[in-house]
Amino acid sequence: MSEHKEKHFQQSAIVKDVVIGMADGLTVPFALAAGLSGAVASNGIIITAGIAEICAGSIAMGLGGYLAGRTEIEHYDSELKREYREVKEFYEKEKEEVREIFAEYGLSEQSQHLIVDEMAKDEDKWVKFMMRYELGLEKPNAKRARNSALNIGVAYVVGGIIPLTAYYFTDVPFSGLIASAIITVVCLFIFGYFKNKLTGQDPLQGALRTTAIGIIAAAAAFFIARLVSH
Amino acid sequence: MSEHKEKHFQQSAIVKDVVIGMADGLTVPFALAAGLSGAVASNGIIITAGIAEICAGSIAMGLGGYLAGRTEIEHYDSELKREYREVKEFYEKEKEEVREIFAEYGLSEQSQHLIVDEMAKDEDKWVKFMMRYELGLEKPNAKRARNSALNIGVAYVVGGIIPLTAYYFTDVPFSGLIASAIITVVCLFIFGYFKNKLTGQDPLQGALRTTAIGIIAAAAAFFIARLVSH
Repeated sequence: MSEHKEKHFQQSAIVKDVVIGMADGLTVPFALAAGLSGAVASNGIIITAGIAEICAGSIAMGLGGYLAGRTEIEHYDSELKREYREVKEFYEKEKEEVREIFAEYGLSEQSQHLIVDEMAKDEDKWVKFMMRYELGLEKPNAKRARNSALNIGVAYVVGGIIPLTAYYFTDVPFSGLIASAIITVVCLFIFGYFKNKLTGQDPLQGALRTTAIGIIAAAAAFFIARLVSH
Repeated sequence: MSEHKEKHFQQSAIVKDVVIGMADGLTVPFALAAGLSGAVASNGIIITAGIAEICAGSIAMGLGGYLAGRTEIEHYDSELKREYREVKEFYEKEKEEVREIFAEYGLSEQSQHLIVDEMAKDEDKWVKFMMRYELGLEKPNAKRARNSALNIGVAYVVGGIIPLTAYYFTDVPFSGLIASAIITVVCLFIFGYFKNKLTGQDPLQGALRTTAIGIIAAAAAFFIARLVSH
């Protein structure tokens, strides 16, 4: 991969991580705090609960994502070993599988045989082809799994702190809720807009959808918490 | 797809959804409640916060997942239209792109030309090939996006209620924390075990990793909530 392409790939990977972490970070702590604001008497409890949630959520998403990445690497390595064994032990059957892939795209039998005979000459390339096109597996990047976990976790923390600040700078839960809702809705709108813009989707639709999820989650949490606490 | 294969596919899709929802559902509300148990005086507040979190988290994951699925469908459709346009407008360039894919796997120039000339005869199959192998996109299933959102959301609720029951059946936060930790660690262990067993990974490793994430998230939330509230 050229240096430019590599850089482009890394940038879009970071954007993807930040989008994943921040979407949940802006939504869940905001909705939890909104829910509690209708059920408890002090901003201190809301802030404590919000910070505990940010801590729990960022670890679950970050560490969970990291370990899922590790599992993916182990899965790839074990499938790779199996594929190398299979092209040795079931040489003809594996060639047949390559032919089937090309038959699906309308190639003649003659071409299928030609392709597979050429491909089978280089075992490494053959296995690489089977991993990608038969099993749909791409080699996972170990360094990427670690960085990704960190990016997602940090984005969750940053996203989660925004709605909580409102409760810090106000005296009672109701004022906190109003300020938090205004700040967070603005942030969700901007975030959803740029999220879609960066991925080539309709920005306004992204803004509206992201904001709607936050508002629905907060409203549901508010009414359920009120119901439970009374 | 045969009926048997279709059924197999649906089953593994549901398992995947339940794993995603329940992993977070067991972890985050458990850790939040554990965090609050070191900072607030009544089980009522812990239960209220826990239920508000379950509500917020399940909506963020479920509805967020549903809308992400919708976005994926729109993305696929727009790329499909573009690919149909490109094979018409940039016929030779698109053929060159197919050749490059096969050059990567060591096929001779002669074979590359043969493949691409045959493939270009059927526009639908050619475009299908480009979507899958050049862009790495598979046709997303609209019904699947809706079902998946529901499965994930419900699994989150079920997972989240388990650690909270302990606070309902005890009188003070400290007893609730002990009971909740025992119940949840057992559930995380069993869940992690079967999660890995079903996906063909090492079950014991799955059990230990899943339990570790829960314990680390709960311990971190506990100490941070204590620090903030004092």
